[in-house]
Amino acid sequence: MSQSLTIALAQHNFLVGDISGNSQRIAESAQQAQQQGAQLVVFSELALTGYPPEDLLLRPSLQLRVEEALQQVAAASHNIAIAVGFPWREQGKLYNCAGVWYQGECLGRYAKQCLPNYQVFDEQRYFATGDQPCVIDLLGHRIGLTVCEDVWHQGPVEQSVAAGAELILNLNASPFHLGKHGERLTLLQQHARSQNVALLYVNQVGGQDELVFDGGSFAVAADGERVLQMPSFSESMALVNYHSGQLQAVSAQSAEPDSELASLYQALVLGVRDYVNKNRFKGVLLGLSGGIDSALTLAIAVDALGAERVQAVMMPFTYTSGMSKEDAAEQADTMGVRYQSISIEPMYREFMAALAGEFAGLPVDTTEENLQSRCRGVLLMAMSNKSGYMVLTTGNKSEMAVGYATLYGDMAGGYGALKDVYKTKVFALAEYRNSLSPVIPQRVIDRPPSAELAPDQKDEDSLPPYPVLDAILERYIERDMSAEAIISAGFTRDDVLRVLRLVDVNEYKRRQAPIGVRVTQRGFGRDRRYPVTNGWKAGI
Amino acid sequence: MSQSLTIALAQHNFLVGDISGNSQRIAESAQQAQQQGAQLVVFSELALTGYPPEDLLLRPSLQLRVEEALQQVAAASHNIAIAVGFPWREQGKLYNCAGVWYQGECLGRYAKQCLPNYQVFDEQRYFATGDQPCVIDLLGHRIGLTVCEDVWHQGPVEQSVAAGAELILNLNASPFHLGKHGERLTLLQQHARSQNVALLYVNQVGGQDELVFDGGSFAVAADGERVLQMPSFSESMALVNYHSGQLQAVSAQSAEPDSELASLYQALVLGVRDYVNKNRFKGVLLGLSGGIDSALTLAIAVDALGAERVQAVMMPFTYTSGMSKEDAAEQADTMGVRYQSISIEPMYREFMAALAGEFAGLPVDTTEENLQSRCRGVLLMAMSNKSGYMVLTTGNKSEMAVGYATLYGDMAGGYGALKDVYKTKVFALAEYRNSLSPVIPQRVIDRPPSAELAPDQKDEDSLPPYPVLDAILERYIERDMSAEAIISAGFTRDDVLRVLRLVDVNEYKRRQAPIGVRVTQRGFGRDRRYPVTNGWKAGI
Repeated sequence: MSQSLTIALAQHNFLVGDISGNSQRIAESAQQAQQQGAQLVVFSELALTGYPPEDLLLRPSLQLRVEEALQQVAAASHNIAIAVGFPWREQGKLYNCAGVWYQGECLGRYAKQCLPNYQVFDEQRYFATGDQPCVIDLLGHRIGLTVCEDVWHQGPVEQSVAAGAELILNLNASPFHLGKHGERLTLLQQHARSQNVALLYVNQVGGQDELVFDGGSFAVAADGERVLQMPSFSESMALVNYHSGQLQAVSAQSAEPDSELASLYQALVLGVRDYVNKNRFKGVLLGLSGGIDSALTLAIAVDALGAERVQAVMMPFTYTSGMSKEDAAEQADTMGVRYQSISIEPMYREFMAALAGEFAGLPVDTTEENLQSRCRGVLLMAMSNKSGYMVLTTGNKSEMAVGYATLYGDMAGGYGALKDVYKTKVFALAEYRNSLSPVIPQRVIDRPPSAELAPDQKDEDSLPPYPVLDAILERYIERDMSAEAIISAGFTRDDVLRVLRLVDVNEYKRRQAPIGVRVTQRGFGRDRRYPVTNGWKAGI
Repeated sequence: MSQSLTIALAQHNFLVGDISGNSQRIAESAQQAQQQGAQLVVFSELALTGYPPEDLLLRPSLQLRVEEALQQVAAASHNIAIAVGFPWREQGKLYNCAGVWYQGECLGRYAKQCLPNYQVFDEQRYFATGDQPCVIDLLGHRIGLTVCEDVWHQGPVEQSVAAGAELILNLNASPFHLGKHGERLTLLQQHARSQNVALLYVNQVGGQDELVFDGGSFAVAADGERVLQMPSFSESMALVNYHSGQLQAVSAQSAEPDSELASLYQALVLGVRDYVNKNRFKGVLLGLSGGIDSALTLAIAVDALGAERVQAVMMPFTYTSGMSKEDAAEQADTMGVRYQSISIEPMYREFMAALAGEFAGLPVDTTEENLQSRCRGVLLMAMSNKSGYMVLTTGNKSEMAVGYATLYGDMAGGYGALKDVYKTKVFALAEYRNSLSPVIPQRVIDRPPSAELAPDQKDEDSLPPYPVLDAILERYIERDMSAEAIISAGFTRDDVLRVLRLVDVNEYKRRQAPIGVRVTQRGFGRDRRYPVTNGWKAGI
């Protein structure tokens, strides 16, 4: 009869493209796991390259680098088995593989069978499809390998069990979106019960461009019970013990899933932190307007990087209210960030003087509003260029959707914390953040939103109230509902047609928007690929 | 024995998403073909939606719209058979189909078997794979259907012949890149000879965002002879006659392929024209600097839209040479476009004054250069907002590659004519354009390139000479060669490592660049999907 097996789940934050750095990390982590008593350590999908490596997978030298890295993995496997994900080329085809090394030898290599090619995923651009299960023998235990999407279908798990697996490893690179954690758990519990097999779900953690991977690795026994839940949004290692079909956590570690708002906030913080740190920016800079978007962005930035790496600039103009100036200064003071105020009045005046001839006789329109916004963008970018601090943009998903933002103005910057957060969620998040400690002046949350680009302007002068706007947007963007279907759901024809048209005609702005954290099932990044030139008209 | 069959090849410019407009166009065109004596008219791939429809294919109402449009096609088929491409959903799966309607009935529907999912193509994101040939009987002739990529493989053509096809229709949406026309012809000639079958290649024409479809439809007889060559870069219809295995052109129409430079120039002109017109801009506006990029862009704009829809603005500063001002004014005058000069000195001065405290004690660096560029960007965008003229950007591929451009400065605008044209090709194109009629002052072509953002600045002060730079870039970007491989090809290690590093670290700029015409096999759009956050280091 076989001995019990102690297995470490290693939930790490890898750097995409840094194959030698990642393999070194894997070797070090394997040694730690071994010191803690593990005989097997499991890493995430494509741990060697980080996920998603995108077109780096097309580079001819990829295989050479992977081979070098796998030698390092093999060398680290003398006293502990290592399960790891990596790309592998064979007979001219590239596969998304999981393999196990032990005592310097490869015990088995599995090629992912279900390659996601939807939403943000392009795996069929890179990978050929595997068609075989892989069950290895390790110290008398039959262990099956699967990769991410494989467990979202029936085939691979069934195959693996049919091939004798009593325990299945599932290596993941599964990005966060709201509610996804529960979906994963339910799915694996169903597999466990229907196939009478234990499963270990190991996910990477960390921000990579627009994606945030939340970790949240877990283990499910063959009866469907979750015996281990690892934390979300941070690196972690935890051990389980497997013996005679029984799976149990080695220590009593268990992380209760956070509330939806808490998860969302942590995702935004991690997204910002990793983008800034992995790209080696000294810190961030943002325009603080006295409005709620920049207030929440400032809170996220400080939580991500610490106050000393965050700088806020108020750039007032004629239409900036006293309230806005007071609230901005107050929040900067509360949060302890460097703060200054620079008026855009002199530059604005010179631009208008230079354009006086061109604009003579023409009515004031959004041109003048955009000009204010662009003066601010130029100031922030100049400060950024000189200091090496990256500009964080403050726009939210509602604005990005309807184009209520100025290209090269408030859209100027390297990264957007709120890019995939609807305005109604911005309010909820501000309240949530203040519930931890009061950092955003209550008046910022309570007053009606305004871009303050014209006298007495309110967002609701040009847009439906945000609860209505966001409800329409969510139906159109995330659920692909048609105009008629949304109208039938109880919205006015005028609102629906106007909002859908704004979404459609503003694709050109989104194409030039900075990337930002994705937290929904359809963000405005790799997720949504709409033509700019587009004759589709809203209707059925 | 069957009668002879007269077939029209209809090479059209459809608008993506405008399904009802496109089907109306198809019906009208079918009527014209019938009046010219055709019994069958062949349109391009996904003619109903235009190509590529991207995520419009995910909209639930797509099928309803396609069904309506196909009723219109069926109604138009009473006196002429119509072969057309369209998306079709069946049993929950969407297929990229070609079908033939005649006398109101569908004679057959073929589902594309080879779905490209590389370069700019994402067809596996949308479509399921067909697995059957489709050969229809039309007036006693056995006609096989294939779609685009199908003929780049052996299977579908062989299948179709095995199923009895004597003539194969190939419906395409094949974007232009340099040299592609010859590849297509060779490929179809090989199929014809090896399978003893005649083939009709019908391609769409027109610009769609970054893609330009060049048309260039043709017909190949079973002995491999090209019996018809339709023009590139313009809409066209032509007739062939098929009888007892023989294929011949009805009229002696034959368009000789243009030279490489002529093709390239026409692609750029068509890309700009269609982007501007399909998006209904009144015209375009560009910054004319006296340099070669903006000079060539102006020529392209005028050739695309006519002088009356083009406006040029010189925005001088301290470092702008007298030569630049003279040459810009001269070209604008030669080409008959509205021209004005607006100094950026007053705004620049105010920005620097406002930033004096922030910048105190810090050395002058690229911040000040970027600031000049951004003052120009703000001016152009203000004029654009007020007038409804779109800003054309003037940057070339060499600059986009190494980040020799200012975000929100010279990169501000809606569309880039030269985005995928290396600087060395910019020179060649300027000479080519002047060979048609002299529009670019010779001095603009002859003087050393300079951004004129600092005293006596030359591009070659910070970059290798363009012939060297472009040769390195082409190897890295289009051929995926590693640093070591490029060095071995005869470039200095310093140059190669510096250039590759610049390409890698400037991905963030390209992400926010306007779209522009793609003319190579790897443009900086949908073609090249690199992570911004990227630990890959140049080396092997």
